[in-house]
Amino acid sequence: MDAGWALAAGLHPGDLTARTEAERFMVRCLALAFRGAGRVSPNPMVGAVLVGADGRVLAEGWHDQYGGPHAERVAIETALHQHGPEALRQATLYVNLEPCAHYGKTPPCADFILAHRIPRVVVGMVDPFPKVAGQGIARLRAHGVQVEVGVLEAACRRFNEAFVHHVQTGRPLVTLKIAQTLDGFVATRTGHSRWISGEAARRLVHQWRAVLDGVLVGSGTAAADDPALTVRHVEGRQPIRIVLDRTGTLAPTLRLFTDAYAASTIAVVGPGVRPPYAASLEQAGGRLWEVPLHQGHLDLQALLERLGREGGREGRPLQSLLVEAGPRLATALLQQHLVDRFFVFISPRLFGSGVPVLCDLNVRAVPEGRRFDTYRWTAVGPDLLFMGYNWTL
Amino acid sequence: MDAGWALAAGLHPGDLTARTEAERFMVRCLALAFRGAGRVSPNPMVGAVLVGADGRVLAEGWHDQYGGPHAERVAIETALHQHGPEALRQATLYVNLEPCAHYGKTPPCADFILAHRIPRVVVGMVDPFPKVAGQGIARLRAHGVQVEVGVLEAACRRFNEAFVHHVQTGRPLVTLKIAQTLDGFVATRTGHSRWISGEAARRLVHQWRAVLDGVLVGSGTAAADDPALTVRHVEGRQPIRIVLDRTGTLAPTLRLFTDAYAASTIAVVGPGVRPPYAASLEQAGGRLWEVPLHQGHLDLQALLERLGREGGREGRPLQSLLVEAGPRLATALLQQHLVDRFFVFISPRLFGSGVPVLCDLNVRAVPEGRRFDTYRWTAVGPDLLFMGYNWTL
Repeated sequence: MDAGWALAAGLHPGDLTARTEAERFMVRCLALAFRGAGRVSPNPMVGAVLVGADGRVLAEGWHDQYGGPHAERVAIETALHQHGPEALRQATLYVNLEPCAHYGKTPPCADFILAHRIPRVVVGMVDPFPKVAGQGIARLRAHGVQVEVGVLEAACRRFNEAFVHHVQTGRPLVTLKIAQTLDGFVATRTGHSRWISGEAARRLVHQWRAVLDGVLVGSGTAAADDPALTVRHVEGRQPIRIVLDRTGTLAPTLRLFTDAYAASTIAVVGPGVRPPYAASLEQAGGRLWEVPLHQGHLDLQALLERLGREGGREGRPLQSLLVEAGPRLATALLQQHLVDRFFVFISPRLFGSGVPVLCDLNVRAVPEGRRFDTYRWTAVGPDLLFMGYNWTL
Repeated sequence: MDAGWALAAGLHPGDLTARTEAERFMVRCLALAFRGAGRVSPNPMVGAVLVGADGRVLAEGWHDQYGGPHAERVAIETALHQHGPEALRQATLYVNLEPCAHYGKTPPCADFILAHRIPRVVVGMVDPFPKVAGQGIARLRAHGVQVEVGVLEAACRRFNEAFVHHVQTGRPLVTLKIAQTLDGFVATRTGHSRWISGEAARRLVHQWRAVLDGVLVGSGTAAADDPALTVRHVEGRQPIRIVLDRTGTLAPTLRLFTDAYAASTIAVVGPGVRPPYAASLEQAGGRLWEVPLHQGHLDLQALLERLGREGGREGRPLQSLLVEAGPRLATALLQQHLVDRFFVFISPRLFGSGVPVLCDLNVRAVPEGRRFDTYRWTAVGPDLLFMGYNWTL
């Protein structure tokens, strides 16, 4: 098991512990599926492994990009080509997500499986997408295929959590990423913050940028750091870059407005605001969005809903968002319960005083503190990565 | 391996990973030695295992209390009694600390080993005590005993770090213990702090109180919480309780001055201060210490030196100190580089604002942040325990 890709996928390496042969093949499905990360959105990431009667792998496949063939189809066609149709009639198909049963951009995978008389299918999780939602599995079973559902299900659900969350809420899955000291500071009292976390942590952030659909920063971070928000330390696709600028007063010279990826920038302003950089940004292919205000601030919920509809490339839905936030934006998202994952790098050093990681959450008694439904931690270089999932009050 | 006693001994469970037979016997020595924790100070904790020619354990022993027989002697006498002198002539003695070579409260263990013709001794670490310091090993070797030194040495050194530190500096080993939220707060902004960490963490703190010689609190904590600082949730010996009260203005009704363990209390005041509780505390057998000031505050270095000389029970040296500090005392100790171990329980919750774990450490640039030479972390109930050892600037 490669811990590296687990963390890049937002999973704890321990989530991928396989105890059975079926679980090992399912981990392999996820590893294959992750090859499409960042390119298949808003589709789910899917990988498939076809295993022959002797337990050996006949073929593998994965959904590689949006609009491309599904993982099951790729694996089956490869196996047909290399081993002939007879091999499939004794094979088991492992796939991390239920095969589809509807005509989308491609014909239904369930029919393709039936057509090749694959007798056994092992599925990681049911597809929550309304047009599938168990119908793929039902269709296979109705035709005599033996279907096992739920192998390594927790890992499969976590792996495609952005897809599930977007299907269910219409909003992108929000991952709030922070780098802080052990005593909870994101900068010294003079504002110095480069670098609190180590190289391995910074590299992992670039991996997240490459596999999540968008990256969001507030105006404070944009003004102070002039971040590029691009993928540099690893190979990968560039994300959509979203910058909040309610008053439209950010400098037109910022990298986000002027660099080679300006077409991937969405500047978010308040109603009726037309900032000086508007024309040049739009000319470069970038977008200027007016978003309503809520209590004097940009309405983050409205922004997330619009991103979920059309924030992606070519106006497609944006399914997942990495927030590289300063204290104000992080606090606002937390207060409005819009944080789905809280990933914090904790550097083993103390500042004593400095810029706190958050502003006020209005907590008076200990039990009022914000907690996590699930959390894990692991080492990333010299730092500790705390991974909190979901929230309860 | 029982993770429980490792943490109670200030070790990470991973420190006790044994890969060889010798390492397994050495872990056993440490487990035996730990039975004397809290009672052998200012002696080191020592355990011994005698293994016969067939690899089976002949006898075990440990130094159980100050002034009592040494571990090697106990093990050898037990083996003699149960197996006779011949068995010893083919045995291997495992012991976590070099056998002594001088007359202290007991005759030298090296001579006792030689007298029983034990042919082989495996030692965890050299004894840094000046009267031993390699002479025990040299004496054994000079008489033909095969001596192996340094099995699981790092764990052995960490295990007896308080003894080593006290021998080398004259001061007790200072363990600063803190319970904080993920975002670095020890209380909400209304001062509420019960309980930030979970039951398992609080239980572990009581274990530390039972095995470390003393517990120190500042006047702020004493006034706000009226802590008993006793061992309650586990079995164990009560610690010496040290409370800072520079101006002598703490309430005479505090538990530390009035409860059944007042004889174990040392109240530390500034020069010439005679607080209202002085007479009753002294009558109960407690101590009132005047300590010089340093820049208007109690001179912590001077206090530690005096504790190291006579802070223990019956005026013996105090070898180890658990500091259950609020932000002011914790910061002062850190600023003066008097913290040897920094053990912080991190509760997976966020307050956003509240009472920060420390005050100002005068850090301007990131590299100036206080760091740890070595650190480990582990789960303690729902909390994360970060264990930082020693300090570099």
